[in-house]
Amino acid sequence: MLKVPDHQVAGHRGDGGKLGPLVDDSGRFYKPLQSDHRGDTELAFYESFYSNTEIPGHIRKFFPAFHGTKTIEASDGSGPQPHLVLEDLVAGRTNPSVMDIKTGSRTWYPEASEEYIQKCLEKDRNSTSVSLGFRISGLRVYQNSEAGFWQPEKKVVYSFNADGVRSALRKFVSSNLSLGPNVDPDGLYASKVYCHRGGILAQLLQLKEWFEVQTNYHFYSCSLIILYDRESALDGRAHPKVKLVDFAHVMDGHGVIDHNFLGGLCSVIKFIRDIVDEDNECAKCEVNLGLKENGFYKSSTEPELDHEAC
Amino acid sequence: MLKVPDHQVAGHRGDGGKLGPLVDDSGRFYKPLQSDHRGDTELAFYESFYSNTEIPGHIRKFFPAFHGTKTIEASDGSGPQPHLVLEDLVAGRTNPSVMDIKTGSRTWYPEASEEYIQKCLEKDRNSTSVSLGFRISGLRVYQNSEAGFWQPEKKVVYSFNADGVRSALRKFVSSNLSLGPNVDPDGLYASKVYCHRGGILAQLLQLKEWFEVQTNYHFYSCSLIILYDRESALDGRAHPKVKLVDFAHVMDGHGVIDHNFLGGLCSVIKFIRDIVDEDNECAKCEVNLGLKENGFYKSSTEPELDHEAC
Repeated sequence: MLKVPDHQVAGHRGDGGKLGPLVDDSGRFYKPLQSDHRGDTELAFYESFYSNTEIPGHIRKFFPAFHGTKTIEASDGSGPQPHLVLEDLVAGRTNPSVMDIKTGSRTWYPEASEEYIQKCLEKDRNSTSVSLGFRISGLRVYQNSEAGFWQPEKKVVYSFNADGVRSALRKFVSSNLSLGPNVDPDGLYASKVYCHRGGILAQLLQLKEWFEVQTNYHFYSCSLIILYDRESALDGRAHPKVKLVDFAHVMDGHGVIDHNFLGGLCSVIKFIRDIVDEDNECAKCEVNLGLKENGFYKSSTEPELDHEAC
Repeated sequence: MLKVPDHQVAGHRGDGGKLGPLVDDSGRFYKPLQSDHRGDTELAFYESFYSNTEIPGHIRKFFPAFHGTKTIEASDGSGPQPHLVLEDLVAGRTNPSVMDIKTGSRTWYPEASEEYIQKCLEKDRNSTSVSLGFRISGLRVYQNSEAGFWQPEKKVVYSFNADGVRSALRKFVSSNLSLGPNVDPDGLYASKVYCHRGGILAQLLQLKEWFEVQTNYHFYSCSLIILYDRESALDGRAHPKVKLVDFAHVMDGHGVIDHNFLGGLCSVIKFIRDIVDEDNECAKCEVNLGLKENGFYKSSTEPELDHEAC
């Protein structure tokens, strides 16, 4: 009944006798509770987050549902181990396209050990984290039943520069990747996935508004997952979804916003926005026009600032 | 005719025979052009910025006016030296209160030398830059003709933690600092300076909107200056102003937003917002109410997300 998940794109995998997550067929995702402080931190985060009545309902939807912990047989055959019982984000989807975006230019937190800080800093500098405020940790893009998925190797994904990231975000919503690297990605699903009414861009902007005010949590080394269903994208039911995962390094915000995550999130938004702006279908879309009028391009118009006393 | 400026709160000062900026009585500020790449970078930035037709007019107002370069007698007596000719931000103000906020959690840029990066990183970690996304570099708060200015020493300002920063931002708009450290700062000018119709908060939010889309410049080690006139604050003419200064480390954005500066700017906004939210006068202010309805607290209300196709 428990099996290694099909659509995981980053993190430890539980195949080949290694310790990793498992899923069942009722939509639950079992993540091994790391035995060190990372396991404690992640469990404490889920318990705090779901008992915090200040978190608005539409923000909770960006986090996996949490069903406590359960001791089950680990994927590496090491016997019964405690697991976090979470929502399987791709349950019920046939061939989801998934991208994992580790968000924030800095994956280390000030209180960490010097050794940990130096290790993270090196990874941040050697990836796009420092330059772009995020890095792609993995992706998997469904093409068709014959070609299957485009899922570049980890070392390819880790070596993306800014242009590589731009290209990956466009390929993520393209239908012609199987024609080879010399064919321009067609961006066929951009309007249905990114700028769609309930699409990725609208969801990221919601999340951004929360990050502008929330001071409870600082999300170090946390990932934004973006996913959708390609097979049904063309008839408008792509079900694009944004979720946050991996809370093993969430720290108390101590009354300060998570400027590190927020900056990276704004950068992700701008990259997607650039794809949307170049897309003919998106240009016609009322949501895209609405975004332009309602906030995103306000800075290009003269605002109403009145220097009289209020 | 040229003299050392009275109201400088951070940076190199030109008194005591040292090289520093000078001002004249026509509202111009003469900044010595640093002879290394910093001088070249700052001059190149001003020339690029003021010839860039994409910069909206209301954004240019956040930058000092630029009048080219001029060779004048340097303040350290070393003879004629090239200076940037800029706007004197406090010209015409009698006793301006001024704060210098170095914005961004990271003052180093990826292309810098290893030595420079390590030096900056240490300063960033030893100040509030890493934790808050900004650090106060200097401040000067006018009290009255008898008490003069409250201007804590550099070493005091540099040692601020989060609470010190919170306190300084409240003291910046208080009238009773001369009563000593045991008296709570009264925040008397908060409504006139911070949440006023053309006030600091509204200006910072304008600047933020631009930073969400601009990809031309990355502003490393750059300062937000906030200033106002205390003496006339109570009759509603505090003339609060936000300006950006110090562009010796501005880099080409290469099509990516300045997520580092933007994150820090959002953090500054939240700190000021917290002061405004606790203030009785601000609570009555229509601007504050408008900000709550129009973006800043939108995340606490259920947004209109529609999962139908567009």
